[in-house]
Amino acid sequence: MSDLKSFASDNNSGAHPDIMQAVVDANHGHLKSYGEDEISIETDEVLQEFFGSQARIHYVTTGTAANVLGLRAVTETYNSVLCASPAHINNDECGAPEAFGGIKLVPIPSEDGKLTPGMIAPYLGHIGFVHASQPKVISITQPTEVGKLYTLKEIEDIVEFAHDRDLLVHLDGARIANACAALDCSFFDMTTALDIDLLSFGGTKNGCLMSEAVVFLNPDIGHGFPYLRKQAMQLVSKMRFVSAQLAAYLKDDLWLKNAKHANAMAQRLAEKAGQIEGVEIKGSVDCNALFAYLPPDVTEKLLEKYYFYVWDAHDNTVRWMTSWATTEEMVDEFVEDIRTAMEAR
Amino acid sequence: MSDLKSFASDNNSGAHPDIMQAVVDANHGHLKSYGEDEISIETDEVLQEFFGSQARIHYVTTGTAANVLGLRAVTETYNSVLCASPAHINNDECGAPEAFGGIKLVPIPSEDGKLTPGMIAPYLGHIGFVHASQPKVISITQPTEVGKLYTLKEIEDIVEFAHDRDLLVHLDGARIANACAALDCSFFDMTTALDIDLLSFGGTKNGCLMSEAVVFLNPDIGHGFPYLRKQAMQLVSKMRFVSAQLAAYLKDDLWLKNAKHANAMAQRLAEKAGQIEGVEIKGSVDCNALFAYLPPDVTEKLLEKYYFYVWDAHDNTVRWMTSWATTEEMVDEFVEDIRTAMEAR
Amino acid sequence: MSDLKSFASDNNSGAHPDIMQAVVDANHGHLKSYGEDEISIETDEVLQEFFGSQARIHYVTTGTAANVLGLRAVTETYNSVLCASPAHINNDECGAPEAFGGIKLVPIPSEDGKLTPGMIAPYLGHIGFVHASQPKVISITQPTEVGKLYTLKEIEDIVEFAHDRDLLVHLDGARIANACAALDCSFFDMTTALDIDLLSFGGTKNGCLMSEAVVFLNPDIGHGFPYLRKQAMQLVSKMRFVSAQLAAYLKDDLWLKNAKHANAMAQRLAEKAGQIEGVEIKGSVDCNALFAYLPPDVTEKLLEKYYFYVWDAHDNTVRWMTSWATTEEMVDEFVEDIRTAMEAR
Amino acid sequence: MSDLKSFASDNNSGAHPDIMQAVVDANHGHLKSYGEDEISIETDEVLQEFFGSQARIHYVTTGTAANVLGLRAVTETYNSVLCASPAHINNDECGAPEAFGGIKLVPIPSEDGKLTPGMIAPYLGHIGFVHASQPKVISITQPTEVGKLYTLKEIEDIVEFAHDRDLLVHLDGARIANACAALDCSFFDMTTALDIDLLSFGGTKNGCLMSEAVVFLNPDIGHGFPYLRKQAMQLVSKMRFVSAQLAAYLKDDLWLKNAKHANAMAQRLAEKAGQIEGVEIKGSVDCNALFAYLPPDVTEKLLEKYYFYVWDAHDNTVRWMTSWATTEEMVDEFVEDIRTAMEAR
Repeated sequence: MSDLKSFASDNNSGAHPDIMQAVVDANHGHLKSYGEDEISIETDEVLQEFFGSQARIHYVTTGTAANVLGLRAVTETYNSVLCASPAHINNDECGAPEAFGGIKLVPIPSEDGKLTPGMIAPYLGHIGFVHASQPKVISITQPTEVGKLYTLKEIEDIVEFAHDRDLLVHLDGARIANACAALDCSFFDMTTALDIDLLSFGGTKNGCLMSEAVVFLNPDIGHGFPYLRKQAMQLVSKMRFVSAQLAAYLKDDLWLKNAKHANAMAQRLAEKAGQIEGVEIKGSVDCNALFAYLPPDVTEKLLEKYYFYVWDAHDNTVRWMTSWATTEEMVDEFVEDIRTAMEAR
Repeated sequence: MSDLKSFASDNNSGAHPDIMQAVVDANHGHLKSYGEDEISIETDEVLQEFFGSQARIHYVTTGTAANVLGLRAVTETYNSVLCASPAHINNDECGAPEAFGGIKLVPIPSEDGKLTPGMIAPYLGHIGFVHASQPKVISITQPTEVGKLYTLKEIEDIVEFAHDRDLLVHLDGARIANACAALDCSFFDMTTALDIDLLSFGGTKNGCLMSEAVVFLNPDIGHGFPYLRKQAMQLVSKMRFVSAQLAAYLKDDLWLKNAKHANAMAQRLAEKAGQIEGVEIKGSVDCNALFAYLPPDVTEKLLEKYYFYVWDAHDNTVRWMTSWATTEEMVDEFVEDIRTAMEAR
Repeated sequence: MSDLKSFASDNNSGAHPDIMQAVVDANHGHLKSYGEDEISIETDEVLQEFFGSQARIHYVTTGTAANVLGLRAVTETYNSVLCASPAHINNDECGAPEAFGGIKLVPIPSEDGKLTPGMIAPYLGHIGFVHASQPKVISITQPTEVGKLYTLKEIEDIVEFAHDRDLLVHLDGARIANACAALDCSFFDMTTALDIDLLSFGGTKNGCLMSEAVVFLNPDIGHGFPYLRKQAMQLVSKMRFVSAQLAAYLKDDLWLKNAKHANAMAQRLAEKAGQIEGVEIKGSVDCNALFAYLPPDVTEKLLEKYYFYVWDAHDNTVRWMTSWATTEEMVDEFVEDIRTAMEAR
Repeated sequence: MSDLKSFASDNNSGAHPDIMQAVVDANHGHLKSYGEDEISIETDEVLQEFFGSQARIHYVTTGTAANVLGLRAVTETYNSVLCASPAHINNDECGAPEAFGGIKLVPIPSEDGKLTPGMIAPYLGHIGFVHASQPKVISITQPTEVGKLYTLKEIEDIVEFAHDRDLLVHLDGARIANACAALDCSFFDMTTALDIDLLSFGGTKNGCLMSEAVVFLNPDIGHGFPYLRKQAMQLVSKMRFVSAQLAAYLKDDLWLKNAKHANAMAQRLAEKAGQIEGVEIKGSVDCNALFAYLPPDVTEKLLEKYYFYVWDAHDNTVRWMTSWATTEEMVDEFVEDIRTAMEAR
């Protein structure tokens, strides 16, 4: 089987060897099913060390499941969830929040995927008005779907704004490790310390096979979750194989090493490719995603050998992502090929 | 970590080493996500060898997902699905068919979990009557939730009955391997050859980590499935780790060896335990589940060391299940402990 | 337009003249919409006189809406509602509880549509078991869909049984007036005094055009109802025309007169038709529905002139219903035609 | 009971006397239920005269029901419906499209509630991409929620654009009569002739008590509607009282007279109030809604006597609506009171 030269998504990477080993190690004899096994229970405790002892942790197999089920567990069908227009829940979940949760999403136009209290405020009218979906949650993504970061202060401001209005704050943390690595802070600093109510905690993109968790930090919410997870077809029977991944992921700062490496590879690519005449890196590179303006014929040439996405054909932007598995050699080879293609024009 | 002495469920077993190895082997470099990788595509072809070239295969991570999504893809919300009262979809999916699919289930009372045309017929009135959910699918489980088997002829009769009335037949095959092993037939014999329209194909209980598939055999149905799977939060990004399991599972008749072994262990347990005075095995042992009448004090004693379910406290039945991982030694030790407990009364 | 000689359903009747007059009288000038008008507010108070001051009343336009929305407002999607197998919610709402509410119905086999604690108890297992829908409501119908009555004591026993198990009791009262007339008790006696938690209060079948109400008696439940009603497309803008019907219906005991008359007509029909040789009235006639065994050729002959339903073609039963609008002359003419048809065999 | 001096909504008006009389006249004897009565069948034919013989008509009791059920009947849960941001389905139905239909709405920013192909085009990416809801319907409102009109040509352009892309066009015609009156065209001209696929046909706001219809013009869509209507709790038993309203509404051009009158009253109010110094009518007055800039203290003073909505407190706009029941005297008195309040500042 041929290896894919991918800068398309961190999803194209495999699993980190340590995490794969943990899965292999979890495969001994008989254990209870559905999360009642010792591995899952111990992993709960590991996650509580990171998020605080009040955290309630529930494992699922996809990021979409983490987002939709977390939101579903804290909303009625007459509630709305406010999010930035590029949000994964709005664009990349095939209508799951609406179809499974009956949730009305209110997408707020945002170029970089970030929200501010000032952007949200105009969408909070009609409280108590029976004709309108009632706002219940502000969902933010960190880093955003276009690779940008909220500062901790910016998140804190949103949480304060939300809580003042009896709204909850959900954090889509599919790539939260990359954010913490970039901002040099812990998971606790970014969530519990800021009074985030619930989050999707991602492991898959940063080295797991398939392991995500819904984490409730607010003790007053989400108590029906175990039933909803089962009903949502996400209660894996041999749960140990899901939870063991996160245990290994969190051990000895593997999550952090992986995320730092992914971020560093994006920086390397940005710096080196950005020096090529005719290639322009769009904006800052905060984490492991970068956007570049590239002539379409060059893009076409590169796609013969590499796998990545044309982000916007109208302005010739492409998206490149790096991961824990991206090597310096891959980056450098890619840069060379970009240079060659540019010079051959 | 202590090993669980479990006769509770085949779900308590781990993964077969060959399948675990396939997962490890799938972990090389970058591959496309969401099932577009070579492993998943090749596994599709492997499954088509078993089910016929017209089969369309979609991987999911739980048996509940396989059932609910398969049924969801072939029904409108005003349709009903007829099933035996002990059906997994009716009892063990926390209302997922209703909540996610809007499906009305019509449970038909059945002691052994089997249906016949004669049992179904009385539930097929009100066709075209706008006040009544319109029957669309007959769902059967093979083997049933209480361990019984349909003969191929019995399935054929249900399919003929269904198709004569424009109904589809869904087969919940979470343990289809055990059924094929017991009846000495192939997957093809039990499904495609009998004109089954769609099935849930289970791998997890018989040696996988978590790998199930929805298989559409009828070419006219289920074409919206890819969108529904994504919407149902079941489109795993690193799909290779799901599909690789089934590829290994189907290779060199591993599925059959595992199933035959599980069935044989149930027979062994039934024969040996059944000889103990005061222990009665209830009915035939068709596959890998058996039910026994056991004095409650003996059950209590055994539960100190073993893990299994009291099935019905009113008539003192317990359920024992075996799996690919149940050893002769486990069975014999268990039998000895039953005998000792009985004799100590 | 030809009048229909109907003994098919009380739904075939029109509106009582006093109720129609109330609708006409409500048509003066401008009023607030969506139930904020004076007529609706005053009708709320009228209903509170009947059900107690803690009652919260919400108008809807169909009996199906009253049932489904009431149940929807007090359940999570992982809850189940237990009901008798002939229940309207189970058979005659085209899967609305499942599709709109995500509710799992657990139909308990019952010949006469009545339940007892003993019949319900076996269906209450698996509390706290995440794989099973969690029982939340017992729904009873008074009178039942096959025309039978619970005594007040029988209802009281169910409520006590339910409340002991943290279950709510819902009463489908689409024909509650007929029940109260037959049992010589008030709405209060039958509901509030017995600690019923919520009910569907029907007006349409007993003389209204289209007016039903969801009534919450338990002050702790159903507080999201106003949003759910709007979301369920049942918040009529010119609500005065719905509420005015119920105000007239409850004025000067019109509801009682209508119901007594309907019941009396059923008794008259049962007594007179029951005396015809070869016609057998099945069981007791408790309210305004009766079932008779009739030779199929006689049924066929009668259907040329009259409109009624063959209830069960297998045992030759037909259902006859009477209403507030059924006259003695209609009954007597019908009886004569039955006699003539029987004698002509 | 005191009459409300309302310029808040055409919903505050009562029913036109001719329509009320039709309801009274429909109240004779027994008729079949659920729309199988002669009045409903004849009304179907009346509507077919207006919309063409291929039109299929289904009555419901609210505009929200007409919109949501029409859209629900032509979409899968993985489809999206594109609409202008001020659309009723987006803002005023408490999330019903999402909750009942599982529909993803894609609101396109629009000041006046109108869409153009150019505005829609950017939202049509990701066709066939399994992660994204698949566009299926463009929903337009005529006149829009802010009182503006599409020309027939503008609608035609949208339909052509839609059909070229295999999309359907839904027209929310809650006030279609006002639009046809303003544009001097028939219902046929505005819908069938332009190849509109389905519409919500409103009667309530223009003189009915509560009567709306879902009209399918495209013969290939919506065939499950009868079941969906029942399931959606909208199948009224005594349907004659709903259909009779529309029969009277369409007789002798009553709909047109009512709509012309309502539009004329809005013009009268705009012209007269617009001449008052300090009062500015915002934009054109196309139908029966108008928006005015009014000093907040004047608004406050007027609200003591009149009922209308502050539309936007930030820029001091108020909304005034007229209806078939608005008299010249009401308008003139209102204008005088506005003038007095302005002069008293």
